[in-house]
Amino acid sequence: MSASFSATDHAHMAHALRLAERGLYTTAPNPRVGCVIAHGDEVVGTGFHQRAGEPHAEVYALREAGERARGATAYVTLEPCAHHGRTPPCADALIAAGVGRVVVAAEDPFDQVDGRGVSRLRAAGIAVETGLMREAARELNIGFFSRIERGRPFVRVKLAMSLDGRTALANGDSKWITGEAARADVQRWRARSSAILSGSGTVLADNPRLTVRLASSSLSPGSAGGEGWGEGAAFEARAPLTQPSPPSKLGGEGFKPLRVILDRQLRTPAGSHVLDGSAPTLLIHGESASSCTDDRFAHIKRLALPTPADAFDLHAVLALLAQRDVNEIHVEAGPRLCGALFAAGLVDELLLYIAPLLLGSEAAPLMHLPSLTDMASRWSLRLLDQRMLGPDIRLRLRPG
Amino acid sequence: MSASFSATDHAHMAHALRLAERGLYTTAPNPRVGCVIAHGDEVVGTGFHQRAGEPHAEVYALREAGERARGATAYVTLEPCAHHGRTPPCADALIAAGVGRVVVAAEDPFDQVDGRGVSRLRAAGIAVETGLMREAARELNIGFFSRIERGRPFVRVKLAMSLDGRTALANGDSKWITGEAARADVQRWRARSSAILSGSGTVLADNPRLTVRLASSSLSPGSAGGEGWGEGAAFEARAPLTQPSPPSKLGGEGFKPLRVILDRQLRTPAGSHVLDGSAPTLLIHGESASSCTDDRFAHIKRLALPTPADAFDLHAVLALLAQRDVNEIHVEAGPRLCGALFAAGLVDELLLYIAPLLLGSEAAPLMHLPSLTDMASRWSLRLLDQRMLGPDIRLRLRPG
Repeated sequence: MSASFSATDHAHMAHALRLAERGLYTTAPNPRVGCVIAHGDEVVGTGFHQRAGEPHAEVYALREAGERARGATAYVTLEPCAHHGRTPPCADALIAAGVGRVVVAAEDPFDQVDGRGVSRLRAAGIAVETGLMREAARELNIGFFSRIERGRPFVRVKLAMSLDGRTALANGDSKWITGEAARADVQRWRARSSAILSGSGTVLADNPRLTVRLASSSLSPGSAGGEGWGEGAAFEARAPLTQPSPPSKLGGEGFKPLRVILDRQLRTPAGSHVLDGSAPTLLIHGESASSCTDDRFAHIKRLALPTPADAFDLHAVLALLAQRDVNEIHVEAGPRLCGALFAAGLVDELLLYIAPLLLGSEAAPLMHLPSLTDMASRWSLRLLDQRMLGPDIRLRLRPG
Repeated sequence: MSASFSATDHAHMAHALRLAERGLYTTAPNPRVGCVIAHGDEVVGTGFHQRAGEPHAEVYALREAGERARGATAYVTLEPCAHHGRTPPCADALIAAGVGRVVVAAEDPFDQVDGRGVSRLRAAGIAVETGLMREAARELNIGFFSRIERGRPFVRVKLAMSLDGRTALANGDSKWITGEAARADVQRWRARSSAILSGSGTVLADNPRLTVRLASSSLSPGSAGGEGWGEGAAFEARAPLTQPSPPSKLGGEGFKPLRVILDRQLRTPAGSHVLDGSAPTLLIHGESASSCTDDRFAHIKRLALPTPADAFDLHAVLALLAQRDVNEIHVEAGPRLCGALFAAGLVDELLLYIAPLLLGSEAAPLMHLPSLTDMASRWSLRLLDQRMLGPDIRLRLRPG
């Protein structure tokens, strides 16, 4: 636990994290995990988890290492599993391969692991050290950790505004505030999310698709989205022979984020893109509207929640989505839903695109937030990073 | 004119620009000018203009060079003057010293120079080349060029806002949105300006001092403000013996920007900081209010302008300030005056400080701007630079 790690250890774990990041767009609801097996400086096997139901990172790395795994050190970004899920326990595989030492970045809080992976390895006489680059490993799976540890997904709210904090003209026109590069960046954040959340107001106003529309070539983890631990790091060209190639088209055969529409009164009109069945879709409505059974909703799932005060309990909405294995939620909604999430303290990250223009004081505000009476009660955030996207600026912030 | 300049030429002119920048806070209404005299790589004299009425850059450089000026090249950031102003013509001094070649960054459009400096040198048989790093030299004197060429000052509007584009709570509370580093940065932009413009609404709401409150040690040109041509460049420690040392306290014995208050109805109350005489102050009021002669205004100047439509003609205000030798105007005003300047197309630069907080949709807007009916008519800007100031972000923008 209080281990001191060498420069070689750091280099191999950084490598394992880069590998893990290759699963950024595909592993949900599973975590993104990478593994490197090495003797000193020499790497003998690498792997990453690609898709739920397929082998874990350790399995690919062990396959590549073969006999050379014996006496080696295995670097794993997440504690090896100790349970029979859809695949056999990785801890057993590491033991069977005869590795001499295992270095783990982050402990796995998942009920069926939660320390058991480490104990099982130690029981087999393997030296296990944990905590090397833990924060980076947790950041890469921030949604997974949120779901397991807090019982709710990680909520990232995307907003695009003018310099004067406006999201649309007074007449509702909001196409396009930001430029092409910013819009492409948004697609990558959508792609890494388990779900995309919006409200019926946005559906009525803009009729968005809320799907991922990017070729997989645009989705290399270094390009955007995967910036938790080593932003911009060119990712390893060296791919093990035993590792399957990445999906040829994400959003095609790849993972499609669940579209979630909050529509208390079932106002979503027939013909809306979100009802077209092109991606898994869940429409959450109020219980009083649940008797409605028209065929608008043939291609999607519906689910009712109580709305006692004429509004959803957003905590309940998030708990429900966590139960459905949603790790990261990407919110693209109007000022009302975004404001309600903020006011409820449920926003974990704000992804704010700022276009260098002014829309004027009559235009729509960024968010509807309750009126403040003193500066002390203002909502404080902390800037994680800023970057240019064409002419626009992107800020990424978290509660301060 | 179509000269090709060597690397040595570029290095000496960059040096001259760094020298010129040392006058950033003191030369108004004169331009900031630097001069380097060199034989090949060897610098034999340097100088910069420090204060109106004192010698020009060339004079200091020639004094330092002495006999070594003969046959040397003089690099000057602005065309040498050809007229007897408060000092004798620099062109004559260069001729008398026997320099062999003069390289000029920017031509001086000032009526009494305007090519005459260059002609006089050429008439004396000196090789003159112009245009080396012209844009940087013009940027350093953007207010001077604006006043001479457009007949109005360069207008820089400073605004501080929250992420959601709000400048104050609904109840008017606006202390403090940004942090200490941002506020110190604002002082430097005030210091480099000829005038600080505000309105009576801001005086009534905040009672600002609108003075420069920084020790001169904070005003090294590299630290902020002087970022036109070579931001962050450490400026030369090498100061010629003949050059006076910089003023010990700016805003004390140094140059004090003129405070300009637009107060159509003479609402500025007795006891307001802007009436205290601690800096030169001009209050512009409507003609109908001009009969008022109470002793509130004992320490300041007043001036009436017509306000036919119950508002000042802002073009006329700026023309008036240009006549009074104002080069750069720093605007710190409320959403109404800032919006009016923008709507009139009179904002040349927006200095926007963004604090990582949310103030809510009931809070005061960034600017009052007329309602837009389509996206095509939005106000587009171009980002010049962005930087962090403590937790805050500063954007510098110009009309697109």
